[in-house]
Amino acid sequence: MGKKHPLLITFEGGEGAGKSTLIEHLVNRFEKLDYAVAKTREPGGTLLGEQVRNLLLHQDKYPIGSISEILLFLTSRAQQIKEIIKPHLDSGHIVLCDRYNDSTVAYQGIARGVGKKLTQDLCSLACNYLEPDLTFVLDLDPKEGLKRTKKMDKDWDRLESLDLSFHEQVRAAYQQLAKEQPQRIVLIDASQPAEAVINQCWQAIERRLLIQA
Amino acid sequence: MGKKHPLLITFEGGEGAGKSTLIEHLVNRFEKLDYAVAKTREPGGTLLGEQVRNLLLHQDKYPIGSISEILLFLTSRAQQIKEIIKPHLDSGHIVLCDRYNDSTVAYQGIARGVGKKLTQDLCSLACNYLEPDLTFVLDLDPKEGLKRTKKMDKDWDRLESLDLSFHEQVRAAYQQLAKEQPQRIVLIDASQPAEAVINQCWQAIERRLLIQA
Repeated sequence: MGKKHPLLITFEGGEGAGKSTLIEHLVNRFEKLDYAVAKTREPGGTLLGEQVRNLLLHQDKYPIGSISEILLFLTSRAQQIKEIIKPHLDSGHIVLCDRYNDSTVAYQGIARGVGKKLTQDLCSLACNYLEPDLTFVLDLDPKEGLKRTKKMDKDWDRLESLDLSFHEQVRAAYQQLAKEQPQRIVLIDASQPAEAVINQCWQAIERRLLIQA
Repeated sequence: MGKKHPLLITFEGGEGAGKSTLIEHLVNRFEKLDYAVAKTREPGGTLLGEQVRNLLLHQDKYPIGSISEILLFLTSRAQQIKEIIKPHLDSGHIVLCDRYNDSTVAYQGIARGVGKKLTQDLCSLACNYLEPDLTFVLDLDPKEGLKRTKKMDKDWDRLESLDLSFHEQVRAAYQQLAKEQPQRIVLIDASQPAEAVINQCWQAIERRLLIQA
């Protein structure tokens, strides 16, 4: 399975910022260097996560309060940690997660107004204090991000179809989190060409690998 | 709508301890005295709660980790607070809840070994710090409780069908919580005749009403 180096790296940012493409490229680089690597994407990968996702997608049928919504996201995340993230870290994998707790804090905690502290504390407990070693926030004007998403002709989920000012609040929330936790969070200008974004992330990862080596 | 006196009273204890019968009787007494009163029962009362209940009942189809299980219970509870408990308290009702956070702490936190502190903290956050004014723990030998449940020919849910030693741990957990929080939690000997249990609870409620009046 290649070189063992447990590391939890999370990827954050608004829709269309390029998280999945970036993750694909980084996985390839790790594999070329013979690192054991795994990627996850919420809510995928666990059967419970899929069930919870169905609940979140069909809430026209039943109201979901903002704290309940956070708890559902965290139910899915806790299961993903148990089934996928933790076992992979324990067996020495580098794990790349498309969204993690910073999403919950930025979207629900700050932009939706549930409260940053309450949401952060809930996240920490639900994840039993499993924190990422490194987090990339792909920072992009939401107008640009939503334009890219439309181009991709993806199904717009509920969060994506909310209004622009909400997405601007999310962006500001991410920027705030990056400012508060500079040791963990690296803010990346996602309006750069993809190649530049990938290289910038890779450099930060290499520094982290060297520090931990 | 009668006399207004917002008060959150929760009822805890193992299966067959007599919570629902007790709640029925207390509701009648409050109504006779012209108090505005409401009762709730988990996960009932909200559409989301029913959905979450379905998830919890069919986990033979998908594994649910112990933290995810807690988060699902709390999802349902948070929604119940938002839709039912909080609005009733705000309009001056006495609200009687069949199970609340102490259940989660006793069953999942302590008996299942997730951790008391972690579970208590999760509960407090998920309920946005809404604590009961008064909690009755109906204390009963689980052998006796399970015997009563069987007599009632109820559908045994997953928790009820777990083994006896688990239920003994739950009982010990409740006793521990009652010892730690004597101001809020009243431990009631549920092996007494129903009438004696009801009267003992009523006296505690009257004292509470007088204190708060």
